[in-house]
Amino acid sequence: MTQSKARAGNFFEDFAVGQVLTHATPRTLTVGDVAVYNGLYGPRFAVQSSDAFAAAIGYARAPVDDFLVFHTVFGKTVPDISLNAVANLGYAEGRFLKAVYPGDTLTAASEVIGVRENSNRASGVVYVRTTGRNQLGEPVLTYARWVMVRKRDHASPAPTAVVPKLAERVDPATLGTAVPALETGSYDLALAGSTHRWGNYAVGEKIDHIDGMTLEEAEHQIATRLYQNTAKVHFNLHEQAQGPLKRRLIYGGVVISLARALTFNGLANAFHVAAINAGRHVAPCFAGDTVYAWSEVLEKVEVPDRNDVGALRVRLVATKNRGCSDFPVRDAAGEYLQGVILDLDIWLLLPR
Amino acid sequence: MTQSKARAGNFFEDFAVGQVLTHATPRTLTVGDVAVYNGLYGPRFAVQSSDAFAAAIGYARAPVDDFLVFHTVFGKTVPDISLNAVANLGYAEGRFLKAVYPGDTLTAASEVIGVRENSNRASGVVYVRTTGRNQLGEPVLTYARWVMVRKRDHASPAPTAVVPKLAERVDPATLGTAVPALETGSYDLALAGSTHRWGNYAVGEKIDHIDGMTLEEAEHQIATRLYQNTAKVHFNLHEQAQGPLKRRLIYGGVVISLARALTFNGLANAFHVAAINAGRHVAPCFAGDTVYAWSEVLEKVEVPDRNDVGALRVRLVATKNRGCSDFPVRDAAGEYLQGVILDLDIWLLLPR
Amino acid sequence: MTQSKARAGNFFEDFAVGQVLTHATPRTLTVGDVAVYNGLYGPRFAVQSSDAFAAAIGYARAPVDDFLVFHTVFGKTVPDISLNAVANLGYAEGRFLKAVYPGDTLTAASEVIGVRENSNRASGVVYVRTTGRNQLGEPVLTYARWVMVRKRDHASPAPTAVVPKLAERVDPATLGTAVPALETGSYDLALAGSTHRWGNYAVGEKIDHIDGMTLEEAEHQIATRLYQNTAKVHFNLHEQAQGPLKRRLIYGGVVISLARALTFNGLANAFHVAAINAGRHVAPCFAGDTVYAWSEVLEKVEVPDRNDVGALRVRLVATKNRGCSDFPVRDAAGEYLQGVILDLDIWLLLPR
Repeated sequence: MTQSKARAGNFFEDFAVGQVLTHATPRTLTVGDVAVYNGLYGPRFAVQSSDAFAAAIGYARAPVDDFLVFHTVFGKTVPDISLNAVANLGYAEGRFLKAVYPGDTLTAASEVIGVRENSNRASGVVYVRTTGRNQLGEPVLTYARWVMVRKRDHASPAPTAVVPKLAERVDPATLGTAVPALETGSYDLALAGSTHRWGNYAVGEKIDHIDGMTLEEAEHQIATRLYQNTAKVHFNLHEQAQGPLKRRLIYGGVVISLARALTFNGLANAFHVAAINAGRHVAPCFAGDTVYAWSEVLEKVEVPDRNDVGALRVRLVATKNRGCSDFPVRDAAGEYLQGVILDLDIWLLLPR
Repeated sequence: MTQSKARAGNFFEDFAVGQVLTHATPRTLTVGDVAVYNGLYGPRFAVQSSDAFAAAIGYARAPVDDFLVFHTVFGKTVPDISLNAVANLGYAEGRFLKAVYPGDTLTAASEVIGVRENSNRASGVVYVRTTGRNQLGEPVLTYARWVMVRKRDHASPAPTAVVPKLAERVDPATLGTAVPALETGSYDLALAGSTHRWGNYAVGEKIDHIDGMTLEEAEHQIATRLYQNTAKVHFNLHEQAQGPLKRRLIYGGVVISLARALTFNGLANAFHVAAINAGRHVAPCFAGDTVYAWSEVLEKVEVPDRNDVGALRVRLVATKNRGCSDFPVRDAAGEYLQGVILDLDIWLLLPR
Repeated sequence: MTQSKARAGNFFEDFAVGQVLTHATPRTLTVGDVAVYNGLYGPRFAVQSSDAFAAAIGYARAPVDDFLVFHTVFGKTVPDISLNAVANLGYAEGRFLKAVYPGDTLTAASEVIGVRENSNRASGVVYVRTTGRNQLGEPVLTYARWVMVRKRDHASPAPTAVVPKLAERVDPATLGTAVPALETGSYDLALAGSTHRWGNYAVGEKIDHIDGMTLEEAEHQIATRLYQNTAKVHFNLHEQAQGPLKRRLIYGGVVISLARALTFNGLANAFHVAAINAGRHVAPCFAGDTVYAWSEVLEKVEVPDRNDVGALRVRLVATKNRGCSDFPVRDAAGEYLQGVILDLDIWLLLPR
């Protein structure tokens, strides 16, 4: 009897601190992927949209959208890390290290940096640090992520708990390595869609991005397959219909990309996501839901040795089926309000 | 208090004759966009489908579909021109001036050429002439469009009415600048899918394009985002459900592209849309509707100094949920028949 | 009166043995098509996904997925062969002859190799051998197909029946011409996603590919249009709603591609479909159905003069709305089980 060669994914017991997982499948990102991404989310940032605009300010050509890079790297980790996940708990220390261009090939590897069994003994939390690299082996992205994973056998012994200490936010002194020295004089504000540079934003400023977009099953499935993300909850209605949700769950990365695209209206010159400080998928999102977003400027800092760009730390909140004119996030008791689905803390770069 | 940096679009009061609006976001069209476009509409014209076919007859390679160019340029104008539009009223004097190839970057600017307040004082008609240019600054497309836009304040004074005089149809002597001198001997009719050249068509000839295609929400949303068109009526079910339509409205450009793709069956050698003489979106189209189309040859003219191509002026009519074997358009009283959704008057070029 | 230039397709009477049909429209496949294909099915084979991986083992770059090539060639034949088809009956002698790369332009021609009228005199079976060629005229794919086509007029005389003798399976000695001599030492099993080479598989081995994917209307329509396949049953709800199915039928090629993508989990190193021995669409598939797949190894052979790759003959079965852990196919009486939709017999190549 030959053992089946199809894999059912790793369980909590399969992870040990220090273990390194090389993920399949290397992926060449192309202008085709960029077009599908644009069709799915409608981003309008000039740097990623136009080779001519990008070249004028110092890029080789239009770089790939940061979140397309993120989701591509993330997707590779799913079959090894989160196929048996109960929940994706959080992100930290995410940094975009180098621009990715169409034609670049991405690979990904993850190191297990923590494990902690849950008291119910049915699952545990796995912490990994994932690095995406280009075809030259250069790191283009790194981030930590923790996820709750089912145990194969509840009776398995608990490992020694290791909980990594992760930074509350990425040190802004490390930002911007993915952005060439910009010829800011060639940065055309009219073409970019806004006169508001870095200097025009203030800490505490809140921006309702106004527009809402309704998600369809075909859209999120196409997106999630584009990233070669295999998590079955996104694709299998036959199975989901038997479960508590009764329907397919939209990959959280779809909400992130849609919220990011919506931020153009108010943050048009925030052309680069330099880092992900923290992120939480607060509530699930389903086909038929309409996603809105708002942002708050948390910090405003100069980037050392750069007078071309400045950094804004932004809290990006996405909601479903409710507008954001009242900037909804948590109630007085600290609970997330009904309709909030994403709470993301990122560093954005803007021209000065 | 910082004023919000998110923009709610221009209102009727914001337009003045002579004003020029430079639209965000420059857009590099790629083979990726072409593929998404092909997946959404299924065009089969050999020139746009095959680099080898296009090169054999004199193009540098397969040019981008004319309506993908049109919708891309149009999409840029939406945030500035029609975000607060009540209705898109018409097109005229549209000319495709230069071939666009994958890799070209398009920008768009519009000049306001007319304004006229409506008698209800709640809205007015804005006339613009929009020009799309490539990365060298060469015009690739120009067209006039008029649109009904809401006033911000009904009490605002009415501007002096200026209504531009627009040509009833584009002068055929100006057609064809986007088409290189063709080596018609290399134009392979079998590969192109029809033996009918320009000379085989007759004025008054009507063609039922037979096939029908049903539109889905995901399809029109992907299309409209691909064009970076931000009109909220196409995307936001949460908001639309509160309004009179109760659902998302399909961008009229989706109907144009679909109808154009359907014309292949009967007009397979009409490989280039040289001009848009007039166009009217007669009735709205929604997901679930099935689109059919038929054409009538209105004029048949030689193009000065060219013996490679000839021009047909064609009325292209699209319907929903009714076939076109009886060539439906208007009733005896001149009213559009139930089911007619598009009435488009275009110049097409065919090999002689 | 001009006869309509729109074509309604060929009927059984229009086919004669020996006739050669050159199909419209030549099609340049690009990285855009690859991206759309990836978004629709989510394949993860390293060779097709990564230029770097493919180049390391001896390809010029990542070749186009074999079934994207197949569906593109097949799509061209539809307007001439199967627009009036009642059913697509089978495939045989399919061989992938040469790698297709992004930028290659495909054309297709078919020779009629058999005709046989049905006893009901309403239709007949047409057998064709179709060859797809690249822009250099080199054959990239050939296959035989037979299809039941309606007669235009039941009273037409029956042609002499000619039923071609088709091989039960492609001779494995002819396989692999589309694969360069591989530097198998550079074939990275970790990146490829499995340690199982050709030698690790055994005849009789069955693999449940586990994952299921639910199909949406927008997805199969986008796919089928991408292939320029014009069969109206896939696109026209208005017409289908009047017929026995009441809804759009999903193109069988969509099921093939989805099943092939699912096989990655268990056959990750089976990077190339070298031949299609036989294929049958057992039951129709509709939007909302969830597709699963399983495989059985039927034969395991060396390829003459090649020590880099070996061949597995695999039966690939797809089901809808039922998992494949019990390897469903036929009942004791030889009837296909409820839920089985595809029974495909293919040769796959794997590194040795």
